[in-house]
Amino acid sequence: MIYDIIVVGSGCAGLAGAMYSGRLGMKVLVLGEMRGGTITLTHIVENYPGFASITGMELAQKLEDHARAYPNVEIKDEKVAKIARKGADYIVESDGGKYEAKAILYATGTEWKKLGAPGEKEFASKGVHYCALCDGSFYKGKTVGVIGGSDSAVKDALLLAGLVGKVYVIYRGDKIRAEPINYASVMKNPKIEVIYNTNVSEIYGEKKVAGVALDKPYKGEKKLALDAVFVAIGHVPLSGIAKEAGVETDSKGHVKISRNSETNLPGFFAAGDVTDTRFKQAIVGVGEAVSAAYSAYLYLEGKK
Amino acid sequence: MIYDIIVVGSGCAGLAGAMYSGRLGMKVLVLGEMRGGTITLTHIVENYPGFASITGMELAQKLEDHARAYPNVEIKDEKVAKIARKGADYIVESDGGKYEAKAILYATGTEWKKLGAPGEKEFASKGVHYCALCDGSFYKGKTVGVIGGSDSAVKDALLLAGLVGKVYVIYRGDKIRAEPINYASVMKNPKIEVIYNTNVSEIYGEKKVAGVALDKPYKGEKKLALDAVFVAIGHVPLSGIAKEAGVETDSKGHVKISRNSETNLPGFFAAGDVTDTRFKQAIVGVGEAVSAAYSAYLYLEGKK
Repeated sequence: MIYDIIVVGSGCAGLAGAMYSGRLGMKVLVLGEMRGGTITLTHIVENYPGFASITGMELAQKLEDHARAYPNVEIKDEKVAKIARKGADYIVESDGGKYEAKAILYATGTEWKKLGAPGEKEFASKGVHYCALCDGSFYKGKTVGVIGGSDSAVKDALLLAGLVGKVYVIYRGDKIRAEPINYASVMKNPKIEVIYNTNVSEIYGEKKVAGVALDKPYKGEKKLALDAVFVAIGHVPLSGIAKEAGVETDSKGHVKISRNSETNLPGFFAAGDVTDTRFKQAIVGVGEAVSAAYSAYLYLEGKK
Repeated sequence: MIYDIIVVGSGCAGLAGAMYSGRLGMKVLVLGEMRGGTITLTHIVENYPGFASITGMELAQKLEDHARAYPNVEIKDEKVAKIARKGADYIVESDGGKYEAKAILYATGTEWKKLGAPGEKEFASKGVHYCALCDGSFYKGKTVGVIGGSDSAVKDALLLAGLVGKVYVIYRGDKIRAEPINYASVMKNPKIEVIYNTNVSEIYGEKKVAGVALDKPYKGEKKLALDAVFVAIGHVPLSGIAKEAGVETDSKGHVKISRNSETNLPGFFAAGDVTDTRFKQAIVGVGEAVSAAYSAYLYLEGKK
C-alpha cells in the first residue's frame, strides 16, 4: 500500500499536520520515536493560543486525539532511519518497517545541544541532565546548576527552584535572553542566583556529579559544588535524514522552507522546530504544519 | 500615553497577537469592531489543532480570555478609521478616540464579497444574506440557495440543510472546490442539490426575495423560486486603512508580509486573513500573529 503522506515526527507539528492531512482525505502514516515530542517535557504551557494554561503532556494528548479523530490517520512509535526517492514517491525506512508515500511531512524537531565539557558524557544521567521537568525531582532540597541564559534555561531554573534547595544559573553572556515575564520571576526568586560571563570548563565528581569547574572565579572560587547540572544551551535541528534525502538546510542545519512549508524537493514538506523559522514556538510550528498539509494536498491533487 | 503596540482587529489573529504581545511585556491596545471576528460566524470548528470540535464562539472566547490573562492587554470595541505615521510612531484614529503606538499589528481580516447582481442590495437582509450561521434559522422548512462553490459555500449548504427544507447550491464552475470531507457530506445529503456552470443574473421579489434568475436553464427553467439566497463567493481583504498608511498589498489587496509577519513599513506587522498567505485558516493566522508579536518585540528591543 502507498500512503498519500508520511509524517516523520510525532510532536506538535507532526500531529497537527497529520490531523489536517487526515481531514483533507489523505491516507496518513505518522512515524515518530517520542509521541507528543518535546512539548511533553515542558511543565506548563501558557503560550499556545486558546489554552491559557495547560501541561505540555495534556496539550500533546489533545493534538494526538485530534489527529486520531480521523480514521485515515495511523500513528506508529517507530524511529525513522532513512528517506529515499523512488520515482516520484518516497520510501521511508524505520526500525519497524519500510513504507512508501507520495509525499513527506518532515517534522522531526530538535535534540538537546551538548556542552562538550569533560565529564558531561561520563556523568550523563548521574547528575548531568538536559530535561529539568523529567529529572528535577531527583534533587529535592539539593543544589543544582542550570547552564545557559535563554528563555528555556530560565524556565528550567524556575521549575527547579520549586523543587530543589538552590539553583545557580551559569551563563557565559552578560544578559539573560528570556521572555520578560520569566526574567522577572527569576530576578525575584530568592532560591536562584545568576553567575554571568562564566563558562563551565569541567563537570567533576566520582560516581556522580559533585560540582563544576568555572573558567572565572565566582565569589573567589573556581569550583562550584553542585549535586546536578542541567544543560540548557539550546537545540540542534534533527535534519540529518532530510539532508541525506537531498533537502536543503541553512548553515545551522535547519530545513529551509517556503511560506507554504515547501522544501526544495517536490512533495517533501517540513514544519516545526526543524525548519529555519525564526520564532520556534509550538503554535508557529503547528501553523506551518497545517500549511504543509494543505500544500501536500494541492501537490497530490496536481498529480491526479 | 504611548502604547507599545496597537492591534487593529479583534479576531483570532488579533487576539492571539495581543496575548503574545502581552506575554512579551508590551503595553497593548486591541481595537476592533467585531470581537472574536468572523470565526464567531462559524458554527463548529474542527480544524484548530488541539480542539477536536468547538463552536466558533467558544474558540473566540478562549482566545479573548487568554489575551485578557495579561493585565497589560486592553481591548476596546472601536472601529479604526485611519492609521498615520508620526515620526517613528503610529497614530491610530478610531470612532472612539485617537491613540499612539510604537508598533502596529494589523489583523483586520476580510469582509464578504458581493455578488453585484440586481436585487442584491435591495433585498439585503430581506432574503439576501452572507452568513448562514447568523441567518439560516429564519428559513426553517423553506427553500434556499447558496451561491458559490468553495469550501465555505459547501459548509454553508451543510449547515443550512440541517435547518431548512431544501438547499440549492448554485455554482458558476463545474467542480466544487471543498475539503473532501465536506464535499462527500454534500454529495450524500438528500436535501442538497448542486446546479453547476450557472450564474445568478438577478435576485427578484417584491418585499422580500422570491427567487433568482439563472443565466442558463436548470431543468428547463431560467427562474428558480427561493425564499432566501446566501451569497458565499468569498472574501475581500480589509486592507484599505493599511494601504493608505503606505503598506504594500498584492493585486487582490492582501497585505504582503514576510515569514516573520513584517510588512514594508518599519514597526508595522500584519497577520491573518488580511495577508497574502495562501491558506487562510484560523490556526495559520494565529501562528502568523504570534510571529508578528515576536517580530514587534525584537523591533522595540532594537530601538532601545
